[in-house]
Amino acid sequence: MENHEYFMRRALVLAQKAFDEGEVPVGAVVVHDGEIIGEGYNVRTQKQNAMLHAETVAIYNACEKMGSWRLWDCCLYVTLEPCPMCTGAIMNARIDTVYYGADNIRAGSCGTVVNLFDYPFTYKVNIVKGILQEECGTLMVNFFRNLREKNKQKKSAENADTENQ
Amino acid sequence: MENHEYFMRRALVLAQKAFDEGEVPVGAVVVHDGEIIGEGYNVRTQKQNAMLHAETVAIYNACEKMGSWRLWDCCLYVTLEPCPMCTGAIMNARIDTVYYGADNIRAGSCGTVVNLFDYPFTYKVNIVKGILQEECGTLMVNFFRNLREKNKQKKSAENADTENQ
Repeated sequence: MENHEYFMRRALVLAQKAFDEGEVPVGAVVVHDGEIIGEGYNVRTQKQNAMLHAETVAIYNACEKMGSWRLWDCCLYVTLEPCPMCTGAIMNARIDTVYYGADNIRAGSCGTVVNLFDYPFTYKVNIVKGILQEECGTLMVNFFRNLREKNKQKKSAENADTENQ
Repeated sequence: MENHEYFMRRALVLAQKAFDEGEVPVGAVVVHDGEIIGEGYNVRTQKQNAMLHAETVAIYNACEKMGSWRLWDCCLYVTLEPCPMCTGAIMNARIDTVYYGADNIRAGSCGTVVNLFDYPFTYKVNIVKGILQEECGTLMVNFFRNLREKNKQKKSAENADTENQ
């Protein structure tokens, strides 16, 4: 469990980077033989590209590092349960085990909205949930609370502008 | 229907490129306002990267072209029914409609192995199947027939080598 927390802490550092850059705070690392071989965090908004979730970036980088599309004997640590795109990428890359932090209520595809592993795809992945769940979840809650607060302040400022016209 | 065939023919040209380069032959184009804004074909093996399916490459390129992660009012034409990763990418990019050619018996996630749109994700996509289905399917059948043939020849050559030792 200590090792799992070590790698999830690195994923949390990456998620915090996303947070600081105004992105939904998700971070991910791919691990092989006790070594991080690919990292990523969500950069969808700043790069304006729907493909650039934490997991897809980490898997892309891990494949580049390994020189192989098959990430045999690799694990992925991610702060939030993967969406359908990222769960599919995990299958396609032949990742052995996914360790995730918080459940993803809107898009989680490892059990929450759908469990893709209930279907007869040719490749199965082990899923372990709840690693540093509270810290991973708190980062998400804080992000969306800040976003709502900013939107409220923006609306108030717009209303004041309208009243002053 | 004429327009649909026009764009699927372009996807087929891209799939043929994949075939000629020894890749599973899948091609895809993203269309906005009657114009192709992103293209891709499967380059997983030659680039040794699990992320590089036809649809993910086409969506990545379309986001770059549009400068937006949201591909509003865009359609995707793809020769083979998308896998979970690509179906998820289509949702994430807010693509309006997917037109696909042949069913994907092993990984199709728009109805064949799973229908991801049966689940309560926040974004829905229209799916139209069977555009130039026969041509799209034949390309796949020929690819896997050639592959089996090559593997058979390789095995015969290896056996002959062993017998001659």
